[in-house]
This record gives sequence, structure tokens and C-alpha cells, in this order.
Amino acid sequence: MLDAAVTRRLRQIVGDQHFKDDRQSLVAHSYDGTPMLQSLPDGVIYPESTKQVSEIMKVLAEYRIPIVSRGSGSNLCGGTVPVEGGIVMVMHRMNRILEVDMENLTATAQTGIITAEFTAHIESLGLFYPPDPSSMKISTLGGNIAECSGGLRGLKYGTTKDYVIGLEAVLANGEIIRTGGKLMKDVAGYDLTKLLVGSEGTLAIITEATLKLVPPPKSKKTMLAMYKDLYGAARTVSRIIEAKIIPATLEFMDNPTIRVVDDFAKLGLPRDMEAILLIEQDGDPEAVERDIDLIREICVSEQADRLEVAETREQAEKLLTARRSAFTALARLRPTTILEDATVPRSRIADMVLRINDIARKYNVSIATFGHAGDGNLHPTATTDARDQEEVHRVEQAFEEIFEAAIDLGGTITGEHGVGLVKAPFLEWKIGSAGIEVMKGIKRAFDPDNLLNPGKIFAKETRKRVVIQHG
Amino acid sequence: MLDAAVTRRLRQIVGDQHFKDDRQSLVAHSYDGTPMLQSLPDGVIYPESTKQVSEIMKVLAEYRIPIVSRGSGSNLCGGTVPVEGGIVMVMHRMNRILEVDMENLTATAQTGIITAEFTAHIESLGLFYPPDPSSMKISTLGGNIAECSGGLRGLKYGTTKDYVIGLEAVLANGEIIRTGGKLMKDVAGYDLTKLLVGSEGTLAIITEATLKLVPPPKSKKTMLAMYKDLYGAARTVSRIIEAKIIPATLEFMDNPTIRVVDDFAKLGLPRDMEAILLIEQDGDPEAVERDIDLIREICVSEQADRLEVAETREQAEKLLTARRSAFTALARLRPTTILEDATVPRSRIADMVLRINDIARKYNVSIATFGHAGDGNLHPTATTDARDQEEVHRVEQAFEEIFEAAIDLGGTITGEHGVGLVKAPFLEWKIGSAGIEVMKGIKRAFDPDNLLNPGKIFAKETRKRVVIQHG
Repeated sequence: MLDAAVTRRLRQIVGDQHFKDDRQSLVAHSYDGTPMLQSLPDGVIYPESTKQVSEIMKVLAEYRIPIVSRGSGSNLCGGTVPVEGGIVMVMHRMNRILEVDMENLTATAQTGIITAEFTAHIESLGLFYPPDPSSMKISTLGGNIAECSGGLRGLKYGTTKDYVIGLEAVLANGEIIRTGGKLMKDVAGYDLTKLLVGSEGTLAIITEATLKLVPPPKSKKTMLAMYKDLYGAARTVSRIIEAKIIPATLEFMDNPTIRVVDDFAKLGLPRDMEAILLIEQDGDPEAVERDIDLIREICVSEQADRLEVAETREQAEKLLTARRSAFTALARLRPTTILEDATVPRSRIADMVLRINDIARKYNVSIATFGHAGDGNLHPTATTDARDQEEVHRVEQAFEEIFEAAIDLGGTITGEHGVGLVKAPFLEWKIGSAGIEVMKGIKRAFDPDNLLNPGKIFAKETRKRVVIQHG
Repeated sequence: MLDAAVTRRLRQIVGDQHFKDDRQSLVAHSYDGTPMLQSLPDGVIYPESTKQVSEIMKVLAEYRIPIVSRGSGSNLCGGTVPVEGGIVMVMHRMNRILEVDMENLTATAQTGIITAEFTAHIESLGLFYPPDPSSMKISTLGGNIAECSGGLRGLKYGTTKDYVIGLEAVLANGEIIRTGGKLMKDVAGYDLTKLLVGSEGTLAIITEATLKLVPPPKSKKTMLAMYKDLYGAARTVSRIIEAKIIPATLEFMDNPTIRVVDDFAKLGLPRDMEAILLIEQDGDPEAVERDIDLIREICVSEQADRLEVAETREQAEKLLTARRSAFTALARLRPTTILEDATVPRSRIADMVLRINDIARKYNVSIATFGHAGDGNLHPTATTDARDQEEVHRVEQAFEEIFEAAIDLGGTITGEHGVGLVKAPFLEWKIGSAGIEVMKGIKRAFDPDNLLNPGKIFAKETRKRVVIQHG
């Protein structure tokens, strides 16, 4: 419960209609895109300007009240669940594109804008903002920045981090800082811009971002390659890169995913395939043709059973549908879908998929795997039922072993979803206790009273590592 | 003076021949590439392994002895001058390339390797590591990482930061951390990798780096465009970008630079030009031809007085010589050369050059300007004489105003050289006092006893801003 004085001051800052503490509003902001996590906040606030955010933070700092800033809450790591109560700050009113600078190829926007709306505007000007998280139709730019979102174009174009070159942010004490700028180079002190990207709302509230734009590719080509042998698909991925081709998209679906997708989208996919690769290349037309021809040769020599190269945009859309419907199709199977995010060096994808399959068998759970093969970022996805605690426990055990397998293969516990609540007990596996201590020190430097998204990234207790049973 | 017990323990760690405290060794490590700065260390140590670095740090932490880690000391910001004495740690013995992974397109190397040697090896394998600081024939990978070095390819390919994806580093207390990995995506906690890049040896000693490699471009074309009107050159830069062409190189030289370069290299450059642009494009041959044709049209329509497009590699080398010899040619003029690093949004280059010229006139000093037009990173270079204190004082006043002009135009005090000692009094102008406080907090989190490169980045006193006299 908030002190009445706090409520009064917050209402004064944003206006009565932009502060809510009715039951319905609190419940609506007690969870996010992550299954099985919920915690009620004490109030929900909707600022409309950086100045308001600063004033709000001064009040919250004075009363030591925790705050979770969020956009649409579409994250999958429990990153915006207010586990310690306090205020949820929803950024949706701060949704303006402030400038697109055609000479410097930059855009500056408030962070509450929906990513797809931002992207649409940029594309209408003939420019290109590459990060394309699957959530982009509902997620905000600020959410993408907080989580350092990736997407299907990560291999060739990088992730959100690679496009954020300047930030405005409000510190825990209400002070406003500006980092970077419309500058392609800036080494004035520590790189606070890149540090804030991916900091999951724990270091500052990001209110405005300056983003690097690039010229759009002139053409694009899409193909599917289907394999009876998982290693054939994996070798194809490695050989494409070794041939010095960096495709725009290089996506993977395993057999369980293929079956479910075909049931759902009726694409006529062959159900006996162990793997499908979705491959796209973009760029100058001649280069795209040459790359796609070479990729096709590699697929054939690696015993791809079937190849489909789209000749029209409509055909391409159909091929893309296979990959795009993976999550939706899986989510229909059972009441609860847990989409995970283990990442390995791309050369270890086949090993990782086989480990995942072994682990799923060991714990008798259903896990389908799809994801970004080109950058080794896999999404093993469990379909389960939150009401069945025994099964959920087995799913959790399986994921624990999957994270351990990822680390074992030189990978990481999260490639693009963030640590949040869900991965916090495993963070030490990746970065060690010395790494955790350094990160906690950074957290204290920004937020000495631990008000900004408390309970995230750092777990009260690190999970013990189990010994992996190799399959 | 070091305690005899310290000296003994350090000698035990590295062996007698790899610890020096004779006068000659101390003097040789009392300065770096920055003019007019010198301070004697108490000892010089040459570790050969991360384990030794860790052991050394434990001893130094115990005795609270400052340490400056360095490669070749070619930096231009006083970044490796041991202003508080203590130990200089030279990384040259740790110079092995540990692995080039062709499947994952990564290289892992110790940080004491000379950058050009690393690059040569990578290129011999048919791969490409784009960062190309002008110092690369003498500078080390570790120095480049510490300073986040840029170079001529920054516009299209980015800087060192964009290629560092994993690090091994030794903390002030001797603990070893590993960040990132052979991973194109990793959001497991704060991005310590990007934070350490550009941290100028103040947060940790970087011992090993995993670097992203890319396929090399298939072809390259080089041209010079010469202008009687500075704004014609500046508009050319903006119009190339607006035409959605991102050249591999887009370099600028002003009239004073052109004259000096021509005196030095006898290239037959027209001495009445206000600006020369050196432009290179690389990529697929068809795209390169198309881009160069378009760029040529833009140059012509912006009244370029003369255009030279190289038809052979030898011709290209000749054109490149003009830009490459800028620093050497200027350095011959007078005993002391001060190369600065002010950076502005690329659309403000002409404004910045004119401001620099006005400021040089106001203080009656010689400043020639060249640099990376494509990313707005200019190198105003003063030729002076360190023995003439009165003139040096005027040069310093002029640079102070130049930094202020850069900030005023939306730029920064350093684009690629780092803060070090030289820019520390100006850092607050760029990032504000709240930004400085956050950075100091990060420093304390890594290095609570301020042992790692003390005196750098953070000044005892911020310089007061003067009021700029617009020209």
C-alpha cells in the first residue's frame, strides 16, 4: 500500500487520470509475457514526458518505493513483473518520433512507441531500422532497448544494441542524463549507451533514444531447405558462413516444430524431415542471386531432401509463414507454453538440438526447438500445463539442464530474451561469481537503494549446477 | 620507490629478466604518443600469461600500488603516462593468436599482439577484421580495445567495439573474468564486454579478446574529389549518405593540410583547393561501380573542381598516400605536433572546420584539419613548439574552444582517441555532472582502491566553459 502523501504527489505530477490504483489496473500490470509469474504492484503511472519521469523518480526515491518501468510487457523473462510491489510505470504515452535526420541517418524517438509503428515510419521514408524482434507489433522500442532484443535479422544486421547510439535516461535519484548522440564515434568516457541497452530497467529509465538507420537493401530472396538429417542442416549453416556468405536470415525448425506448424498452417510441409532451414539473402540484386545460387549448391551437397526458392513476394511470404507461425502453432497445443532462449556458437547448433532432445526424453516433456540458426540462438519451447505442478517441475528441471548444456557448448543462458526473474538463478553459470560481483557493483553505482526493477538479473541464490548426463 | 618485498615478489612471478627498474627502462615507459607529458614509473613488468597478470595484480592490490597496463603506448590522450608512478605493465609478450574459428568467423588472441600482425594473419586466411586505426603498424590489439580505436573504415564498418564479442580480463583484485564468447547474441546480464572496450585501462586489464570477423569485400575502388568551396565538399558528404550510399572510406583534408601534404609527398595536388575528399567504396564489383558512378555525379553537381578515379591498385595507392601522409607531413613542420579528435554529426563538418579556422586565427596558431568526414570525426592538428610556453598556452586555449564548439554542434570531445589525461578536464562538458558521477561509480565498482590507471578519464577539476565567439 502506498502512503497517501505519495499517491497525492504522483497524481499531482501526471494528473488524476494517469495514476491508477484500482484493483483492475493493478491486476492488469501484475504479469507480463512470461507464463506462471504474477505479483501485484501498488500503483500504475503513465508519464507523458521526461520531466514527469524525473519528478516521479524524485518522489519514489524520497520514499524508497520500487519501480518497474515497462512498455507492453511482452518480454519472456519475467522482466516486468513487479515482484517487490511499488509502482509500475507504463511508457506508452511517450510514443513520439521526435526527428528523422536524413543527413545523419538517425532517428530520435521516445521509448514508448510500438516498434512496428516506428519501423513503418522509417521505411516510409525509404530508410531501414533492422532489429525485428518477433514481438515488434506489440513491443515498444524502450522494451527492445531494455532487453537488447534480437530478431530474425541478427546474423547479418546485429541486434538492438548495434543501432542505439544515444540515450536520454532518468536515474534513480531523478537526475536526467544524456549519453552518446548523432555520432558514429564517441569515446568520451565509459560507454553508458551500450551499458544501458540490455540493462532490463535496473539501471535507469530510458526515455528517449537516438538510433542509427541504414539504407534498405535493394532486393531480397527467400528459400526453404528441408533435411532428413539434422547434421546436414547444421553443416549447411556452417558451410554457408565458411563460404563467406552472411545471409540476412538463417532460421531453423526441428521435426516437432515442423509437424505442429504444418497442422496449424496447412503448408504441406513434409512431416518426416528432421530440420528445415529458412534462408533469406538481401542486398544488390546480382549479389543476392549469386549468394542464393551458392547456398542452393551447398544445400544440395549436404543432402537437402527438398528445396523451395520463392520466385515472387507471395511465395516468399508463404515460406516465411512456416517459421513465423512456429510459436503460435506450439502455443495452441497445451495451456502453457514456455519459450526459452539458449544460445551456442553457431557451429554447435546440431549438438545443442540433440542435447535438447535427449533432455526432453529424460524428463518426459515435450520440447520443440526452432530459432536463429545463423547466430546460434535457439528457442527450445516446452508445451505444458501450469496446473500440473509435477509436470511443470520436470519442465523446469529440463530447462536447467538445457542452460547447462548451452554453457557447456560455449554458449549462454540467454541470447535475446534477457535474464529478468527467470534466468537470474543461472546467471552465475555464465559469468562466474566475480562477474556477478562486478555487475552488482554497477547496479549499486546507478541505484544504491535498489529501487529500479528490484529482484531482476540478480538472484537471491544461484542454482547449483547438476552434472550433465550426455545423451 | 617500490618496497623491496614487492620487487622480490614481482620478480618471482615473471622472472628476473622481465621486471625492470633501471633508470633507462623507467624513462622509456614514462611517456607515450602524446606530446609534452611525462611521469616516471617505479617499475616495468612484462607478464607472459593471464595467470601472471593475476598474480601481479594480487601483489599490487595488497600493497596498493598503481598500475598502468599498456601495449605500444601509441595513444594520443596521455592514456598510458604513469602519472601516479607505480608499475607499468607491458603486454607485448602476450602476443599469440590463440584460434581462428572458420565456422564461427571469430578469432581469439592475446591482447599484446600488434594489430597489423593480427590483421595480416586474418587476411591470409581470406577473412577480414575491419578496424584500421592509423597506428595499427605499431599499436596493439589491447591498446585498440582499451581506447576503442576507430580508423578510416569506421563509417561503413564501425570501430573496435563492433568487433569485440568476448574478453578475458583481470580485475584489480587479481580475479579473472570472462565476458561474452563466440556468440553473436548474449544478453546474460550487463554488457561487460562493451563496457571494457574503451575503458582505457581503468576498469580491468584485458588479456584476451574474441573478435568477430567478416567476409572480405570482393572489390574496391578509390577516388579523390577536390573543391574550391568547403561547403561543396561538405554537401557532397551529406548527399552521398542521403543517396543511401555508405562508402567504405570518406576522408577529408582542408587547405592547410593539402599544402603541407603536397610539399611533403610531391603528389601534384592543386594548392588552391579548400578541401579534398578521399572516397573509397568496396563490395561486390557491380555495386562498387554503381556507387562510384553515383558519387562522381554528386561530386560534379557540387562543383568539384577536379576528380581522379583510380583505375589500378597502384593509382589507388597514390591517391591514398595523400591522406595517409597528412600526419607525417604536418609533423615535419615544427618540433611539436598536437593531433586532436573533435567529432560532430557528419552534417556539421563544414561548420566545424570553419569554426576551427576562426579559432586558430583568434589565437594566432597553426591548425590544419583532416579526418574522417563520413563519421564526422575530425583531427584538427596544431603544429607548435613545446619549448615556447606562451605559444603552447595559446594552442591549448584554441583546443579548449574547439572542444566547446564540437559540443555546441552536437558533437563530442573525442571520437576515437580517448579521454586519458588530456581530455579529462573536458569530459563533464559532454556527459554532465550526473554522467561523471555514474562513471565514477562504475570505476569504484571495478577498482575501489583506484589502482588501475589512476588519474585518467576523471579530472581533479573540470575546466570552466568559456563563451564561444562565433566567427
